[in-house]
Formats: sequence, structure tokens, C-alpha cells
Amino acid sequence: MSAAREKANHQISSKRSLLCVGLDSDPLKIPRIFQSMPRPVVAFNSAVIRATRSCAAAYKINTAFYEARGLDGLRDMEESLEHVPCECLSIADAKRADIGNTSRMYARAFFEHWNFDAITVAPYMGEDSLEPFFAYEEKLVFVLCLTSNPGSADFEEQALSGGQPLYRRVLERVRQWGRSANAGIVVGATKSSELELIRREAPDLFFLIPGVGAQGGSLKESAALGMDAQRRSALINVSRGIIYPEGEFGSVEEFELAVARKASALQEEMEGIVCPSDDGAA
Amino acid sequence: MSAAREKANHQISSKRSLLCVGLDSDPLKIPRIFQSMPRPVVAFNSAVIRATRSCAAAYKINTAFYEARGLDGLRDMEESLEHVPCECLSIADAKRADIGNTSRMYARAFFEHWNFDAITVAPYMGEDSLEPFFAYEEKLVFVLCLTSNPGSADFEEQALSGGQPLYRRVLERVRQWGRSANAGIVVGATKSSELELIRREAPDLFFLIPGVGAQGGSLKESAALGMDAQRRSALINVSRGIIYPEGEFGSVEEFELAVARKASALQEEMEGIVCPSDDGAA
Repeated sequence: MSAAREKANHQISSKRSLLCVGLDSDPLKIPRIFQSMPRPVVAFNSAVIRATRSCAAAYKINTAFYEARGLDGLRDMEESLEHVPCECLSIADAKRADIGNTSRMYARAFFEHWNFDAITVAPYMGEDSLEPFFAYEEKLVFVLCLTSNPGSADFEEQALSGGQPLYRRVLERVRQWGRSANAGIVVGATKSSELELIRREAPDLFFLIPGVGAQGGSLKESAALGMDAQRRSALINVSRGIIYPEGEFGSVEEFELAVARKASALQEEMEGIVCPSDDGAA
Repeated sequence: MSAAREKANHQISSKRSLLCVGLDSDPLKIPRIFQSMPRPVVAFNSAVIRATRSCAAAYKINTAFYEARGLDGLRDMEESLEHVPCECLSIADAKRADIGNTSRMYARAFFEHWNFDAITVAPYMGEDSLEPFFAYEEKLVFVLCLTSNPGSADFEEQALSGGQPLYRRVLERVRQWGRSANAGIVVGATKSSELELIRREAPDLFFLIPGVGAQGGSLKESAALGMDAQRRSALINVSRGIIYPEGEFGSVEEFELAVARKASALQEEMEGIVCPSDDGAA
């Protein structure tokens, strides 16, 4: 069992939460109160982290939102990562992959240089493009399987000659290629019937489930269908639904309160699903 | 016609070369003479660029090799990009793509912030994941189609229910989604029979062809099969085969001479294919 997987599962059990907070932090969307600070995005992210720490099992940093501003943005990413509590899983949502010698470099970037616990990768180029990530036995590697966006119909859901859709073949292969339980997949929350089937076929993989909230997936359904038999091994990512609460905020504390309320509400929705016996007793 | 495509085709015709020099610059592999310089990778890249400028139509920066060293590496990438002559096509070999609102951020990073002329992207997530790149009409977007690595058999070459392999469906869709002739694909040089078929099916797309040299593809065959009817719209990438000439170098000039010889030899091999009438007269 990989250390990253153990860490995530320990968080899930102790916080009774599958919540992964997505730090898709767009400088144009963060509240005005942060805009005048010297490093608005870092200040914003660290406020979000403080406000959600008691409810979140993981934090997912979407690299695109940082790369968009070049080195300044990536410096913000680096510093924001330092604010992620070490007991929580840190995920680089990077969707990388290339031929083997290049994937080795990406793996080195995210697993060594930045020391993320986990990464998302894209499967199109096949085994040798993913192997360098799986080689890190202590980490978690989430391979795109069936995503929540409309474009999933274009290739992911296309039937192969044997009748099964492409994403099912990806699923089979990831189960073969992962080692030491460091393999995971990304499955969109908008695909609940497929999520159920996928979990049945892959009882051993760790699931990262985005698409709740802005994209329309159901939190409760995703939680119930995504967990493994031990009611763990799944993370449900919420980004915009947590980090951009409505309203104007006069202080950082007010903002944190609004974010904490959002996170708590989500955690409470999941609590009864992650720990059903407690729920019955409550 | 996109400005980037015009620029590349102008270079191809005027230099009689399809050569794209891949700056996969690994600090551990660059000659000792650069190691003691303040910014070894930038010094190395600028020497490679000086030595190849008369033969190269394009330069491809493999983002993984820079990300591997975090901000320092990305600063090197940024400075190296400044050394790419503005008449040559600059390609970010980034293999990015994500849901629409995230791909918009990646497109902004590479097309606006760093101002590359072109990018490579991964197709797995479908249309809305690629659209934000195609929205830049003046750029060139190379979608992974059939790659040169062994893993291409795992998914890319899998037959769909209609009988055609997945990469052919990707090809069809890229032809639909690209606009203003800003669409391109990546096809590995190791797949020459498929390359011929793909060019027949997609006479209008721009081809980026890696896999010559270290990966074993044939330069002449790839050149002949990859070009369009006007004997343009194809770039053949060579990385390790140019940037790491064998031997010890006592000076930067000696290194540049060795690199220039490699590049000239490749350009000469292609010249007769790009301009066959000249070749007949020679």
C-alpha cells in the first residue's frame, strides 16, 4: 500500500469526509479583499485551506490556473502547496504524460521537485507513458478514465471492436500497470451509472471524482458509489462550489467563515455515507 | 491560414528543410563546458540555436525537461524561448488538455503568457478540451494522433467497433474541429505506412513528426510521406540526434560546429525531398 494512499484513507476515516478541495484559483475571481495583498492567490489559497482543513481529506492544485501566469503563477503554486497541511493528500491536477523518457521528467517535477503526493495523468499514449509515474510506489497516480465533460463522448465512450467502451480498456490496463496499490483513476461525478459499474470492476483502485457542483454531479450519489468496500479510497473534488462563496467580504475572516460553511455542509452530507453506523445513531 | 502555419511553411520553403530541433535539454547530459556557466541550460540552448538556425524551420521546447527543475527550470525555458529566432516556429511540446475552463488557462499560458506559436495537446477528453486551443486562429495546435512509442498499441491503435483504429477517429475529429488551418497532428516517424495513409486522409493538416533518430524512424521516408501536396506543412523533430553530438568539446565554438554538422547533414538529406527539382539539377 502506498504511503499516499494510506494517508488519504486515514484522512477519510478520521474526518469522515471524502472532500478534496480544488484550488482552481483564478486571480480574476478571487474576492476583492485579497486583490490588494502582495500575493493575492497565495493569501486566498491559504485562507481557503485554513477554512476547510477540518473537513478536507485532500487538496487538488490545478496546474493550469498557475501556469496561465507563467513563473509568477507557478511561484504562487509552489507557495500554496506549502500551506497544504502535511496530513492531507496533495494532488497535482496536471493531466501530463508523454513518451517514457519525457514522462520521467514530469514525474520528477511533481513527485520529487514539488513533492506532491499524487498526480493526474492522461492515458492516450499507453503504458510506457504512464510507467514512470507508477514507478513511484509511495505516491498515487490518477489516470483519466471517464471524465465529466461533454467531450467524454468523443473518444472515452467510443465502443471498441469487442463492444466495450475505450474507458473500460483504460480501466483494465490501469489495474494491470499500477503497483503497490498506487493506482487510481479519474471518474466524473456526472456519470453515476458508469461510476457504479467501474467501482464493481475495479474494487482495488483509488477514485478521484470531480464534477460535483458547477458541473452538475450529485455529491451523495458519487460518494456512495465511488467508495470501496471499506468505505474509503475515493475523493470527491469540489472547486468552484467551495472557493467562490457568493457575497462581498469585509475581512479575510468573513470570507473564511463563508468557505468553512460550504465545506462543512459538504462534509456533513458525506458523513452519513462514509460512516453509516454513526449516522444511524445520530 | 494561421500566421503560425504561414511562418512555418515559409521557413520550410526558404530553408528547404522540415527540420524541427527539439530542445529536450537535460542538465545531466549537456557537455561539461556548459556546466560551469551561470545558466548552463540557457547557454547550451542558445548555442544549439545558433548552430542550427540556418537549417531549422522550428524549435520545439519539451516542457517536461524544464518543469523537472521547478521554477529554475521554467525560468530557463522562458529565457531559452527568447533565443528562438522570431522567423522560426516555436512549439511548446506540452501535451496538455483538460475540461474547457481549464484548457483555456493552458492555452493562455502557452499562447499568451509565453507566446509560443504552437503547442502539442492530448485528445483523450474530447472536443471541449481542445476547443480553447483551436480558438487561437493565428496559432498551430498539434493534437496527438499516432505516436512513435510502444504504448501507442495500448489505446491509439485499438480498433473501434466500426473497424477503424482510435487514432483515425481522432484524425477525423481534428479535421472537423480545427479552424483557419490552425490544426495539426502528431504522427510518429516510426509508423511510415500509417503516415502515408494519414496524409492521404488529411491533406490539409499540418504534421509534426517526432521519432527520427533515437526512436528509430527514417528521416527521408517521414519527409516524403509527411509533406502535403505543396511539399510543405510537415516538420520532422530531432532532439537527441542533434543536441548531443558525441565527443568532448574544448570550447562552445567546437560544440556548435559539431551540432551544426549534424543539423546540416539532416537538412541536406531533406533538401532533395522538399525541393526535388533542385535536387535533379544538382
